[in-house]
Amino acid sequence: MAKREQKTCSIRFEPSGLKVKVPQGTVLLEAARKVGVYLTSICGGDGYCGKCKVVVNEGQFRSNPTTLLTGEESRENVVLACQTKVLSDMIVTIPKSHALTTDQILISDDASRFSVLAGEASEKAFCFKPLVQKTYIQLSPPTVQDHTADHERLNVAIRNSIDISIPVLQMGFRVLQELPRLLSESDYKVTATVGFRGGAMEIVQIEPGDRSGVNYAVAADLGTTTIVAQLLDLTNGTTVDTEATYNSQINFGEDYIRRIIYAEQNNAFGQMQTSIVNDVNGLIVTLAERNQVSLGDITAVVCAGNTAMIHFLLNLDTTRIRREPYVASASFIPPIRAAEAGIQINKRGLLYCIPSVAAYVGGDIVGGVLATGLNALSEVALFVDIGTNGEVVLGNKDWMMCASSSAGPAFEGSGVKHGMRASRGAIEKLRIGPNGSINYKTVGDTRPAGICGSGLLDTISELFVNGIIDRTGRFGQKADERLSEGDEGRQFTLVETDCEDKGIVITQADISNLIRSKAGVFAAIKVLMDTTQTKREELGAIYLAGGFGNYLNVRRAVAIGLLPDIDLEKIHFVGNTSIAGAKMVLLSQQAQKEAERIAGAMTYTDLMTHPDYMDEFIKANFLPHTDLSLFPSQRLYLKAHDDVY
Amino acid sequence: MAKREQKTCSIRFEPSGLKVKVPQGTVLLEAARKVGVYLTSICGGDGYCGKCKVVVNEGQFRSNPTTLLTGEESRENVVLACQTKVLSDMIVTIPKSHALTTDQILISDDASRFSVLAGEASEKAFCFKPLVQKTYIQLSPPTVQDHTADHERLNVAIRNSIDISIPVLQMGFRVLQELPRLLSESDYKVTATVGFRGGAMEIVQIEPGDRSGVNYAVAADLGTTTIVAQLLDLTNGTTVDTEATYNSQINFGEDYIRRIIYAEQNNAFGQMQTSIVNDVNGLIVTLAERNQVSLGDITAVVCAGNTAMIHFLLNLDTTRIRREPYVASASFIPPIRAAEAGIQINKRGLLYCIPSVAAYVGGDIVGGVLATGLNALSEVALFVDIGTNGEVVLGNKDWMMCASSSAGPAFEGSGVKHGMRASRGAIEKLRIGPNGSINYKTVGDTRPAGICGSGLLDTISELFVNGIIDRTGRFGQKADERLSEGDEGRQFTLVETDCEDKGIVITQADISNLIRSKAGVFAAIKVLMDTTQTKREELGAIYLAGGFGNYLNVRRAVAIGLLPDIDLEKIHFVGNTSIAGAKMVLLSQQAQKEAERIAGAMTYTDLMTHPDYMDEFIKANFLPHTDLSLFPSQRLYLKAHDDVY
Repeated sequence: MAKREQKTCSIRFEPSGLKVKVPQGTVLLEAARKVGVYLTSICGGDGYCGKCKVVVNEGQFRSNPTTLLTGEESRENVVLACQTKVLSDMIVTIPKSHALTTDQILISDDASRFSVLAGEASEKAFCFKPLVQKTYIQLSPPTVQDHTADHERLNVAIRNSIDISIPVLQMGFRVLQELPRLLSESDYKVTATVGFRGGAMEIVQIEPGDRSGVNYAVAADLGTTTIVAQLLDLTNGTTVDTEATYNSQINFGEDYIRRIIYAEQNNAFGQMQTSIVNDVNGLIVTLAERNQVSLGDITAVVCAGNTAMIHFLLNLDTTRIRREPYVASASFIPPIRAAEAGIQINKRGLLYCIPSVAAYVGGDIVGGVLATGLNALSEVALFVDIGTNGEVVLGNKDWMMCASSSAGPAFEGSGVKHGMRASRGAIEKLRIGPNGSINYKTVGDTRPAGICGSGLLDTISELFVNGIIDRTGRFGQKADERLSEGDEGRQFTLVETDCEDKGIVITQADISNLIRSKAGVFAAIKVLMDTTQTKREELGAIYLAGGFGNYLNVRRAVAIGLLPDIDLEKIHFVGNTSIAGAKMVLLSQQAQKEAERIAGAMTYTDLMTHPDYMDEFIKANFLPHTDLSLFPSQRLYLKAHDDVY
Repeated sequence: MAKREQKTCSIRFEPSGLKVKVPQGTVLLEAARKVGVYLTSICGGDGYCGKCKVVVNEGQFRSNPTTLLTGEESRENVVLACQTKVLSDMIVTIPKSHALTTDQILISDDASRFSVLAGEASEKAFCFKPLVQKTYIQLSPPTVQDHTADHERLNVAIRNSIDISIPVLQMGFRVLQELPRLLSESDYKVTATVGFRGGAMEIVQIEPGDRSGVNYAVAADLGTTTIVAQLLDLTNGTTVDTEATYNSQINFGEDYIRRIIYAEQNNAFGQMQTSIVNDVNGLIVTLAERNQVSLGDITAVVCAGNTAMIHFLLNLDTTRIRREPYVASASFIPPIRAAEAGIQINKRGLLYCIPSVAAYVGGDIVGGVLATGLNALSEVALFVDIGTNGEVVLGNKDWMMCASSSAGPAFEGSGVKHGMRASRGAIEKLRIGPNGSINYKTVGDTRPAGICGSGLLDTISELFVNGIIDRTGRFGQKADERLSEGDEGRQFTLVETDCEDKGIVITQADISNLIRSKAGVFAAIKVLMDTTQTKREELGAIYLAGGFGNYLNVRRAVAIGLLPDIDLEKIHFVGNTSIAGAKMVLLSQQAQKEAERIAGAMTYTDLMTHPDYMDEFIKANFLPHTDLSLFPSQRLYLKAHDDVY
């Protein structure tokens, strides 16, 4: 009676062994998504990026025709998961390139980085006054002479204990209902958890006895690709632990514009929210369990993220972010109860989001400015955050301009054949020796799996200085045995394929992508500097943020024309400043106010409609630039050998 | 197969015809309560007040033995509902005395009363600025040049429209989520509903288009006995309609201390809340339907009530209100969403409660002070509210003292054999003519059903001036054919029983109750005046509030020693000042702030522990007082004939 065709199909994914049951006809990418199997997909399932390749080991399927698979791949049952329907039970292998596990995500130690920042403003400049505080209150029980009601008795004591000048805005209705019982059961000795919002206090919870020593919070950076969370001890401001995960929304598209389109086309806004909220909850649970902290003792979360991520998190309308005139639903989001967004901390704990500036300049950038202290400098400085987009901020304590270039995620490894994030196995440094030999270093010193941002930066500059590519980035006429013709045109072999190492190449298309990406960023910098008549020599500092790798060589960033040519001492690679900003806000009400000031003070320039941007972009599509007078040190930098490995 | 004993019994109550099915063994009072049949019960079902008499017409029951029924009553199947268990299907008649329907509740026309108040402060002294306002906003849609996010775009416009100096505290998370859709669907023309709390604004809702002309609110007086609600048009401050109902909690005890005991003994706090919330909701629905107002267009409710009623409404802990040191859970209750308390208006509409002073001086008194304007007077004035308790406030714009005497509800008709509330059929005026004839006037000019407060006040003074009772309130030796010996001792017949009229008497016990009640109030006044060294001549005004009846004769209130003997022109009967205060608060943020100031400024004196109170109480247990020098005008008043009917 058994038929080969059945209604429900069971799929096992290797090497994880994860299983899922789906209706016959389900698209394989969707099935993988359902069980949480990570598959790279840039196009969001439209079948044209060719990234979601998997191998079908067993089972029947039907694939749409595609030109993105070679004949050999087809023979080996490689399919595009987004173009393949499940027809029977299957066993599917996810290639190693997809198999990025959480422990491979690089978490920069922002604390140590901050010591290198120019000292005018630093984390320590803000006084320690967390957004949520606990205070132990020993009330005098009421007497015939003093019959003040519980609510007012407690409010007065809290204000006396914390800050008499701040009014108590509200006590949650359920807290108020529980209050008399709590007070009498605890002999009028209780711990109040107080949250701050808009210059007033809110009583978040009342606990019996002295619980003032137990108060935690989470700072989170909601990146398009990676989500990082830190567990903080609010009683002393220390960072207890850090955890990171890939943003599961990657299954719906690598950049957030694709995800918005996916959500619109599939009415999947709720799904997008669930996806990112689950990621955040997962991190919180991991951090809590590993450190034996009860979720109920986590009383606040501060999120920094680009505008789209924050909108997804809160299920705010994202559709107009991608349509002219590019409007966000909210830039300054009032604190809400974390539970309202589905975030599982204390059921009355608060969720704060760092305010954004515009649809394309989010709270991650505001947090970055805060963390670098650019907002407090007398000199003019530049903040550059390179991720999927490249955001640029120019200014000082008196004024700030910002812009976002659609740089593309090349320096995050996307759109590059063997590009990858700065995780284990990524080539993060690369040099071509005098004899043409290639030396490299990988994250974790393991076998190379691909190249991350800092490695790509090195690669471009090394190819250029060795004359393998010309100023336009094209492979020149110089004969080199490493140059060959690949599937995607000419390519340069960085790592030979052998029994142990996967072959790693960089293609002409990769190089063009990277140069376009750096050109987009530099053009943005140039437009802001020209608009404000800021001269190169006037820049007091450049802060470069992003997930490049551990050892970004700022000299080479200048050499290829990514950053303006200023004294190298003034250029600082600052890593993940988004989470550093979130942490500062969490630990200091003063920092929160300053973040609001920054977001309000920053002037956004829309590059898409700027008359000079396209010109500058075209001019920057050279190594380092068409105008060499902008890069006087360039030759020097390229010739200098870095002896770092 | 049919047995006489069955599990479920069906009961029909006459004359209403209401039916209910209850398990065999259910107490009859509970069965009545279940179907909403009103039965007077002072003791809350303990079987000692004897008020819940009903007649069993058919069916079987088992009653506990009681001394509160005469032999005749027992023969006629009169039972105490609280002491009777249902054994079979029954038909039960509720005697007329219980049958108080809503339309009989007197609603004083506070608007007209206010014209008589001393003019230093009046309703008009506060500017019209309701606690919840609607404003129509026509936003410029975003452009490339102006890409401000929706949330901030709207907030700025609202502040410009309402008051730029007031910060927008928060927009509900759900409102924020809906905002972009609403704005684009309405072409950026929306109506914002804004609530005020603690010096900040909250966006309550956003509606598409211009809805600024439709905004209603409800002011409610939560009395122990009666609940009155007014529907107000917030666009112009007019009172649209008024409705009242009996407080259904009466079924659990006539005074709130009994109700607290009932709730404690039966763990019925939730039931108490449901009871009063249902009453309020019933009034709101009636008002809304009668005036074709949608519940969604009612955006706020302001409640004034004694501390216990507000606690019941919000299900706050009431148990300590009745125990030393008599503490409330909260005096100043932050505005909450009405829905949180179960009140069915706009789902995000706000509920404000007028703050209370202490466990025994509630928001009704604060509202009363506000409504009379005592708080703004230069001269010292007295505010007296006589209900179940008698609350007294003495003071002026600079200081205020208050106290609550456990006067007992005699002037509300409880504890008096033929006492009743000031509703249809109540004798509200009474005179004994020179020939001994008795003339009276009833509310609604119908056949007499009982005597209400003003009638009782008349009765006492008339019996005294005619020498029928002496200064101690005892029936003297003077022969009078109307004096007789009743079940409860000596009694005086006010209305003869005949074929048309129910016989109405006043008993020795009634008179003692009333004198105790007035003595309690006067002793409270005396203590406050002595404490503050306020002389009788210094009183600029006396405001007497309460549900006495329409035509309270203030001269007689002085004559029997209820109020201090001052110039009659300065004594004002002001009716229901609790709802008048609630209305003022609703219509004026300034009035709300003033109510908070009043509640905070008033000094509460606990009479129970005051060394002089008992002395003063004993001295006041005479007509008018032991110390006649306090009442120089008394004889004059008693002799004077009022020709008012």
